[in-house]
Amino acid sequence: MPKTYATVATLPKVVTQTVTVRGWVAHLRSSGKVAFIVMRDGTGLLQCVLVKNQLTPEVWERFATLTQETSIAVTGEVRAEPRAPGGHEMGVTDLEVLGTSPHDYPIQPKEHGIDFLLDNRHLWLRSPRQVALMRVRHEIEQSIHDFYYERGFIHVDTPILTAAIGERSGLFSTEYFEEGTAYLAQTGQLYGEAAAAALGCIYTFGPTFRAEKSKTRRHLTEFWMIEPEMAFYDTHASMQLQEEMLVSIVGRVLERRQAELKELERDVSKLEAIQGPFPRIAYTDAVATLQAKGSAIVWGDDLGAEDETLLVADYQTPIFVCNYPKQAKAFYMKENPDDPRTVLCDDCLAPEGYGEIIGGSQREDDHDKLLARIHEEGLPVDAYGWYLDLRKYGTFVHSGFGLGLERTVAWITGTPHIRECIAFPRMMHRLRP
Amino acid sequence: MPKTYATVATLPKVVTQTVTVRGWVAHLRSSGKVAFIVMRDGTGLLQCVLVKNQLTPEVWERFATLTQETSIAVTGEVRAEPRAPGGHEMGVTDLEVLGTSPHDYPIQPKEHGIDFLLDNRHLWLRSPRQVALMRVRHEIEQSIHDFYYERGFIHVDTPILTAAIGERSGLFSTEYFEEGTAYLAQTGQLYGEAAAAALGCIYTFGPTFRAEKSKTRRHLTEFWMIEPEMAFYDTHASMQLQEEMLVSIVGRVLERRQAELKELERDVSKLEAIQGPFPRIAYTDAVATLQAKGSAIVWGDDLGAEDETLLVADYQTPIFVCNYPKQAKAFYMKENPDDPRTVLCDDCLAPEGYGEIIGGSQREDDHDKLLARIHEEGLPVDAYGWYLDLRKYGTFVHSGFGLGLERTVAWITGTPHIRECIAFPRMMHRLRP
Repeated sequence: MPKTYATVATLPKVVTQTVTVRGWVAHLRSSGKVAFIVMRDGTGLLQCVLVKNQLTPEVWERFATLTQETSIAVTGEVRAEPRAPGGHEMGVTDLEVLGTSPHDYPIQPKEHGIDFLLDNRHLWLRSPRQVALMRVRHEIEQSIHDFYYERGFIHVDTPILTAAIGERSGLFSTEYFEEGTAYLAQTGQLYGEAAAAALGCIYTFGPTFRAEKSKTRRHLTEFWMIEPEMAFYDTHASMQLQEEMLVSIVGRVLERRQAELKELERDVSKLEAIQGPFPRIAYTDAVATLQAKGSAIVWGDDLGAEDETLLVADYQTPIFVCNYPKQAKAFYMKENPDDPRTVLCDDCLAPEGYGEIIGGSQREDDHDKLLARIHEEGLPVDAYGWYLDLRKYGTFVHSGFGLGLERTVAWITGTPHIRECIAFPRMMHRLRP
Repeated sequence: MPKTYATVATLPKVVTQTVTVRGWVAHLRSSGKVAFIVMRDGTGLLQCVLVKNQLTPEVWERFATLTQETSIAVTGEVRAEPRAPGGHEMGVTDLEVLGTSPHDYPIQPKEHGIDFLLDNRHLWLRSPRQVALMRVRHEIEQSIHDFYYERGFIHVDTPILTAAIGERSGLFSTEYFEEGTAYLAQTGQLYGEAAAAALGCIYTFGPTFRAEKSKTRRHLTEFWMIEPEMAFYDTHASMQLQEEMLVSIVGRVLERRQAELKELERDVSKLEAIQGPFPRIAYTDAVATLQAKGSAIVWGDDLGAEDETLLVADYQTPIFVCNYPKQAKAFYMKENPDDPRTVLCDDCLAPEGYGEIIGGSQREDDHDKLLARIHEEGLPVDAYGWYLDLRKYGTFVHSGFGLGLERTVAWITGTPHIRECIAFPRMMHRLRP
């Protein structure tokens, strides 16, 4: 009889039917007459029940050969079983071994050191917590695409390989034929601005690179960023969009990934509290608040990680810190007409101490002010000629921001270190596997 | 009175209302008493009508100052007007200049050379044909995400920076702290395979890099690729998925991007013909057919571009060429049990001579055969240790493929050269802007 294959995720559709499911052994248990296999197939967990006196001796004996991660095909009737992991159970009539797995499988139920786990990331990914993290990341990514698609934003892929835009630190470089040195993009923003003049509202979604010797729990050398850029949005409209986006992402994960949040032991009440409006706090006010709380920050400094944690402690939602001093921020941010010492920008800080997840700003749309800032920073004007063109030919009010994907995943899943929030993390001492 | 802002795309909702639209001047025309502005705002085109005796002299005179790409805000009543570009017209009551545009705007209605256009890519992107291309690309991207989301595939981001996996040609490299040299990924496949063992069916969607001195109309040094990897799919199931994906993408573009296809002067009847099943032609049969058509190909050769064109000439749909000789393909492809000189693989060739858009294969899941192939190719076994682990701990039948995004956009939009199918193309002699 030909087999009818099913995945664990589709089992609700085949209850009472006999199907074959392929996957890997996660747990084994036997009482001598009844044996249990909990298997995973990537889509979920299935408890398989083998009753000795209902099976041929060959099949029953095959159970004894199983080890963790053996790949198997099990055939049997699917039953709803609320107490089983995944909510279904299979009464096994046949068991086939597809691929053996030696007893030295590296990832064991015991505690492993992080370096060992990262050395074995290709196998560690199979663990329940890692599977849950990757599924939530996936849901977040799709929810972002959907959010922007529904709003008519155009997804634009900006280049990774870029020509020199000045001697900036933290750049990876590579030889590029006869064109000299190319640098790996730290951001797609400048290109996004050009695209916004062509397409209105756009967003990029891709990897970005920082060759920084940071070893914190919030830094990767390669991380994914979403960078919307919106023609005719000022800084207020941009913050409104950021807020709607974050509420949408969190809502989507709550709606569709409860099982993963449970696996991750996430306190979902913290996520249910994520509703707008998010507080918008002027930098100058934030400094006063921090000083009152005992921080040594002085006006002009960027906020440190400890300052961020102090500041968000009073709130259940993300907060915006707006209008930083010019000296603390990038040259392309628009001067604040109400206080030219500052620029029209915002950092969005996640609650629970997860820190900055978004940096955004209205862009300087005055050609001469932008040129002056390029000179002040000692940047090569030639390299920015095309960027200045955007202010020469029909300049326009526009704003944009960058959302760090791994930091967002870390916050939503309650993961302390972002290295677990991407399939194969890249850090200063980590290039493999 | 506060202004009500609208974008061109949302005008159907505000017919008979007075709104303000911001954008850029595309065309100007005046009869002395009536003037027309066709403006673009990234979401579409709007014809604006100015009647001299219904306007203040200031507003009327302002019209005379307009140039191509001046950014403006127009206020007036929106009317349905089927003869106007975009289907709507505005009876202008106010016109504001937001940003001037000098008369030297580089992109003029005349023919420009390709190098000039690419040097001004940041402005060329604003042209109607380029806008249409970017919108179709965006629709294709979202349709791919939706296709896989609906099927329960997990989107996984694989690393760009990778450790050495042998002396392969065509790699961009960069210094990576104390870890030595890192290479920019040519594919995410190997990582995708590890993720498939964790998550079942996955897909990657990201930039890939080839440092090749190719100067054809089908090569970029940086291009985007979608690489699904499916646990428990054999080569036939993989081709079925490829076919469903391509039919889905083309159908989606036909459904939602008719205006863009019209702008691109695409013969949509060619796209309407894209329905399954697609022919599946064994390589050996393809060689015989090509030889009968006069090709000099001999068994063992890869198909050249001319061979591909000859072969697809008989078909209206994409075709699969399957089971190439082992020597012409990569080490990880599974040996064909019916003919061990060949491997279980497929190239999908687009119709109309657009050439290969997908390369796929069943992966070698036999540990020892894979190890032997790694030795045969002279690859460093150490670097592939983690990849071999996937065959050691519960090996599994699996297949995957890579779809080249720019080639797919070129085919669907009928664009001869893929350099127009990405916002900022990167080629051997092109790293700017």
